[in-house]
Amino acid sequence: MSKSQVKNIVVIGGGTGTFVVLSGLKKYSVNLSAIVSMMDSGGSNRVLRDEFGLLPTSDIRQCLVALAANNNGSEVLLRKLFMHRFCRGKGMNGMTFGNLFMAALTDILGSQEKAILQTQNILKIKGEILPVTFDHSHLAVIYENGRKVVGEHYIDEPKHNGKIGIKKAFLLPSARAYLPAIKAIKKADLIIIGPGDLYTSLISNLLVKGIAAAIKKSRAKKVFIMNLMTRIGQTYGFSAKDHISVLEKYLGKNCLDFVLINSKQLPTNILRKYQKEQAFPVIDDLDGTGLKVIRKDFLGKQITSRIAGDVLWRSLIRHDSQKLAKVIINLL
Amino acid sequence: MSKSQVKNIVVIGGGTGTFVVLSGLKKYSVNLSAIVSMMDSGGSNRVLRDEFGLLPTSDIRQCLVALAANNNGSEVLLRKLFMHRFCRGKGMNGMTFGNLFMAALTDILGSQEKAILQTQNILKIKGEILPVTFDHSHLAVIYENGRKVVGEHYIDEPKHNGKIGIKKAFLLPSARAYLPAIKAIKKADLIIIGPGDLYTSLISNLLVKGIAAAIKKSRAKKVFIMNLMTRIGQTYGFSAKDHISVLEKYLGKNCLDFVLINSKQLPTNILRKYQKEQAFPVIDDLDGTGLKVIRKDFLGKQITSRIAGDVLWRSLIRHDSQKLAKVIINLL
Repeated sequence: MSKSQVKNIVVIGGGTGTFVVLSGLKKYSVNLSAIVSMMDSGGSNRVLRDEFGLLPTSDIRQCLVALAANNNGSEVLLRKLFMHRFCRGKGMNGMTFGNLFMAALTDILGSQEKAILQTQNILKIKGEILPVTFDHSHLAVIYENGRKVVGEHYIDEPKHNGKIGIKKAFLLPSARAYLPAIKAIKKADLIIIGPGDLYTSLISNLLVKGIAAAIKKSRAKKVFIMNLMTRIGQTYGFSAKDHISVLEKYLGKNCLDFVLINSKQLPTNILRKYQKEQAFPVIDDLDGTGLKVIRKDFLGKQITSRIAGDVLWRSLIRHDSQKLAKVIINLL
Repeated sequence: MSKSQVKNIVVIGGGTGTFVVLSGLKKYSVNLSAIVSMMDSGGSNRVLRDEFGLLPTSDIRQCLVALAANNNGSEVLLRKLFMHRFCRGKGMNGMTFGNLFMAALTDILGSQEKAILQTQNILKIKGEILPVTFDHSHLAVIYENGRKVVGEHYIDEPKHNGKIGIKKAFLLPSARAYLPAIKAIKKADLIIIGPGDLYTSLISNLLVKGIAAAIKKSRAKKVFIMNLMTRIGQTYGFSAKDHISVLEKYLGKNCLDFVLINSKQLPTNILRKYQKEQAFPVIDDLDGTGLKVIRKDFLGKQITSRIAGDVLWRSLIRHDSQKLAKVIINLL
């Protein structure tokens, strides 16, 4: 990595995967931009969308926490507050403080864009967090059996047979990219996609008008970080190659330069837990695809319990922030 | 005022009146302590008490805002946030952000005392805010007709005939004073009581074990700021002398050194609005009582509208912060 100029890294996703990537990269002197999905519709976000008429901010909140200042000031406490989920109060149960913070700030400042920008100042974050769009839009999919489902939450936690594959994903209504997100992609030296739920966290970004085209056009190195596990309703039975071929459908063929994939065996107790959710490790069948594959131990520490007050399912095992960051920085 | 030593002022109350007094005194170089009633049980506080199992913090929140730093940092925005009341969201409607902030912080830090202290640090407030007690207690009253009512909210917004006087007020169960509040009274040079609702904001403090005794024992000058208006359910038909005689019942005879009372005529349009609530200006009949009465124009600007999202009735006319502060400082 050249020391003469600070490099620009764009991370595309939302949710836990992006949180992990940003947490690791924060420690390096790079310019970080996180482009974040705005189609979430479950839990705290449902309340925001349906009752407040606001865009969902849970993914933004996770990125804010990942990039928040780490000194000993009041920012540390604010960061903890942002992660806090109420588990008391009839109307508050499951609501995250961070979402309420941004909702209140939107009322005061008059727009969600201003509120998100201002929150970044208050938390003194390193880098910038860019909602992929400010248009109110829902993720919709058509399954192989012709069934259509609208709403991220219903795809994420399917009420139907989640083993049936997704034929096509689109946004309802269509959404235009937030201009600063396009600008960030244009000046990027490295673009990271994933890890994250293939449709609800990654493709939901690529479906926003202008995003996929900007990535294709960009001279940046494009890196995909492969998920550790498959997920019912989205990637049931998927191998690594299946992930790539679906991604390329929305991103364009031969767009990716590198694929990072974990090579370390997952602990048996964790696998058993995932099995109950019909989730399995992603099989590495990337040999012979022509892709530059980086295979390494990317495994993080396992999380054993569900967070109090959380009404949604969160990953039990994650990538390791530091292991990922080290490899990513070497690609610059 | 001697410049050799910074003087200690203790303000006892809660609610709008205390907010006004603190806002004015903040601009002077004095040590400020606000002792705040913890018996509130309406609106946002009801949710805190009933659904969160916490003590009410709306009065504390108002004091925090009054004493928050006034520079250009993110504290100004945090201050605005603290005053913000949600008017959207089924479970959030009417909830104040400040109360949710302290509730979340209580979950994180493990106690409401720590949360209130830490919030004062985050908002970089000038002075200290001291809850009168950390015991969970309700204000109860017995009216002249023998009827007993428990709960600040039912006294504040009576469902019965509010013209009937209160015979006796007490706490259920009894509450012990927060020790730092007693300490503040001990070292005070000046103690200010009011303005504020006589029973629900002022006597509710005096009923806490140790508070009235500490005030009586203190060598500080004791100042009572007379309310502008009477209030149905608490002080219907009260003159200034009636206020003093009820206060003395809980505080002790001849305890007050000074009474500040507004001498300026209230605007007719405001009087008409108050009349609908059966509230009338407090008649000054303090001549010949032996009290040192300071009569002046203490009137602030009138407030014409109800705050959005607020489910409770707030005063339409207030004392003026600066006019009060100027006179108070001269008493030191």
